[in-house]
Amino acid sequence: VLPVAVISKKRDGLELSEAEIRFMIDGLVDGSVPDYQISAWAMAVLLNGMSEVETACLTDAMLESGGRLARASDRPRVDKHSTGGLGDKVSLVLAPLLACCEVDVPMLSGRGLGITGGTLDKLEAYSGYRCDLTPLEIDRQLQRLGCVITGTTPDIAPADKKLYLLRDVTGTVPSIPLITASIMSKKLAATLDALVLDVKFGSGAFMQDLESARRLAGSLQATGERMGVDTRVILSDMNQPLGRMVGNACEANEAVQILQGQGPSDVRQLTLALGAELLVAIGRYQQTSLAVTALAEMIDNGAALRRYQLMIEMQGGEYKDQLPLAASSVLTSSSEGWLAGLDGQLLGQAVIELGGGRRKLGDRIDATVGLEMLVRIGDRIEHQQPLVKIFSASNATSRKAAYELLESAFSYSSEPVPPLPLIVSEGITAS
Amino acid sequence: VLPVAVISKKRDGLELSEAEIRFMIDGLVDGSVPDYQISAWAMAVLLNGMSEVETACLTDAMLESGGRLARASDRPRVDKHSTGGLGDKVSLVLAPLLACCEVDVPMLSGRGLGITGGTLDKLEAYSGYRCDLTPLEIDRQLQRLGCVITGTTPDIAPADKKLYLLRDVTGTVPSIPLITASIMSKKLAATLDALVLDVKFGSGAFMQDLESARRLAGSLQATGERMGVDTRVILSDMNQPLGRMVGNACEANEAVQILQGQGPSDVRQLTLALGAELLVAIGRYQQTSLAVTALAEMIDNGAALRRYQLMIEMQGGEYKDQLPLAASSVLTSSSEGWLAGLDGQLLGQAVIELGGGRRKLGDRIDATVGLEMLVRIGDRIEHQQPLVKIFSASNATSRKAAYELLESAFSYSSEPVPPLPLIVSEGITAS
Repeated sequence: VLPVAVISKKRDGLELSEAEIRFMIDGLVDGSVPDYQISAWAMAVLLNGMSEVETACLTDAMLESGGRLARASDRPRVDKHSTGGLGDKVSLVLAPLLACCEVDVPMLSGRGLGITGGTLDKLEAYSGYRCDLTPLEIDRQLQRLGCVITGTTPDIAPADKKLYLLRDVTGTVPSIPLITASIMSKKLAATLDALVLDVKFGSGAFMQDLESARRLAGSLQATGERMGVDTRVILSDMNQPLGRMVGNACEANEAVQILQGQGPSDVRQLTLALGAELLVAIGRYQQTSLAVTALAEMIDNGAALRRYQLMIEMQGGEYKDQLPLAASSVLTSSSEGWLAGLDGQLLGQAVIELGGGRRKLGDRIDATVGLEMLVRIGDRIEHQQPLVKIFSASNATSRKAAYELLESAFSYSSEPVPPLPLIVSEGITAS
Repeated sequence: VLPVAVISKKRDGLELSEAEIRFMIDGLVDGSVPDYQISAWAMAVLLNGMSEVETACLTDAMLESGGRLARASDRPRVDKHSTGGLGDKVSLVLAPLLACCEVDVPMLSGRGLGITGGTLDKLEAYSGYRCDLTPLEIDRQLQRLGCVITGTTPDIAPADKKLYLLRDVTGTVPSIPLITASIMSKKLAATLDALVLDVKFGSGAFMQDLESARRLAGSLQATGERMGVDTRVILSDMNQPLGRMVGNACEANEAVQILQGQGPSDVRQLTLALGAELLVAIGRYQQTSLAVTALAEMIDNGAALRRYQLMIEMQGGEYKDQLPLAASSVLTSSSEGWLAGLDGQLLGQAVIELGGGRRKLGDRIDATVGLEMLVRIGDRIEHQQPLVKIFSASNATSRKAAYELLESAFSYSSEPVPPLPLIVSEGITAS
């Protein structure tokens, strides 16, 4: 096999064999196929696509480039992955909640980059929280607690790490097969029985429209099923932040409110829906509604919150019911009407301006800054009505830039606007 | 401008600005845009195409990456380029022939790679022939003789040299805009008044079908015209070798036969047609037929052959009317019928097996080996009829491999097959 032959075959729209895909990925990892061939191939994949079989082969080759986590117990082993959006703190609630239901949740998460926050950054708002657990530490914590949220270990899918760095600078990120293989190779390395995917669409999501989100969801699910893991998908709205809080400590605090049986209903609803899919997938319940009830009980009896606190502490963090936030001010409306749209890109950029997100990998972030959304799409907005509370520790220039971004993020209609449904498509199972 | 933004724009099918194209080419040359970004961009260009304006900008950026040859005299300055094929020795005849008509022909040529022979390799069959003339030597020879055939100087379009090496290993060769810019940036660096392009199609050509050849021809011509050079195109058949001889000394000998007023009529016809286009383009004649007559006269009176001999000698070569060839044997037909097809790829591979072509840049070639085609498509072939004379100095294994390739290159029909027209489309001018 010659790299140029594999590139040319994909360029010509043909299907690659498993051996050809493995050759490229192995060559990427051992350096025998240089970056300039990988990037040309990635562009051909982006523009000409991959079949389900090819995508599964790519995922498998990337998974096999590294190791897998060992099973820690004979409990079922499940995980959730979200394609990312503003205010998405579901992982913080869901991992301890599921652990209360006698399943193991080995959640390997990432950091925020661009407008999307990162679960690890939110947990690091607890002073001392460690995201660099070794496979052995992950194993021990799962045995004792049933849940862990930590960074991927260096041994997990090294091919994905190299390929992602290259895709990021060669315009080859927005490819459904490449995204699928990137997500699934890392998730499946955790040795799962079931996986639920929260695929988000809308102005604050990677996939801006429902149709693209559906295509990605189909690809993720088909790949999971081909690789022998019961894989479920929920499509959820990201045309406005999930919950009220956006920012790291802000979101950790809101997660605790949810675990206390309080907080905004959309976060609770989505968390329960995602968890219920997993409990049905492993056969714990036949009906989603029963699974939802069981999960809600673990919130309402305080078990999930206790498990969350234990997880924070076992990973070295200093738990607080509510973490301190930066000083706040309020942006009020200069128009009136029905709130018709919230530009998620602008909201996310405002958080970055405040110091709560990263422009590039390695940027430091300030956990105490963020936003509290005071209105939702469909609300009637009066002149001078408070729209968003801004927690800001940054200098005047950045704060001014953030305010300007926020002001332009809101759009109004003179006609009533219906509220947006949160979950568009629930419980998609294998075709 | 960020490279990833330019790549993404082309990936999304948008038109690049002149500044964006120049940014990529300048970055390629000075190393500020790394190879992995250039190759992803080249793949996006290949798959999403370029407009005429973009292609002209790319050509200009590549041309401007180096220097140009200076005018040597106030005579009109013309050149011919062929997209390459088997047995194409037209340049050897045409350059001295046009020089006899008081025009300067600064022909910067290449070496053979793959199945296509190279003009420089054919001329190096004359012992001592130099293909590395400096710009000053080119200038002097043009002043004295009106023609030169040498390699491109290091200063000509360095962007093309770097880009071609990268395209060759990343599956990004067969792109009409990239081919166009590669050809035209080098040709136009010779500072021309008129250029004629021989775009070949068929089994022995780079463009296998007429439609692709037409598209390439249109792109080449539009680019030449946009850059202010009168550019003409002829589409010619390459479903069988041009003339009878294929191989380096073989073709040099056949070129001399043409210059002696002998040799196969197709070589003479195509040479005269290409030359006539140029003489009409510079306004020397209004009618192609008059230009053809004038050129034929320069062959028939011996002037062109004398000019050829002078050119060989001025470039250090030892002229011979007929160069020695390797020992020959003959392949005869094992079938009968009308000759319906000749697989140019197999014929070309047979020449490589004999040692007359290169598998990779830098391979040594044997000038004395080659083929003499004894039949043409449409001929009635009897059992055991001689098909091709093989000049071979190679070992038995290679010779056997060459024979096998040759045998499978011939295909027959039980019905009569019409001969192929040589020139399909003559004298295409700017749309």
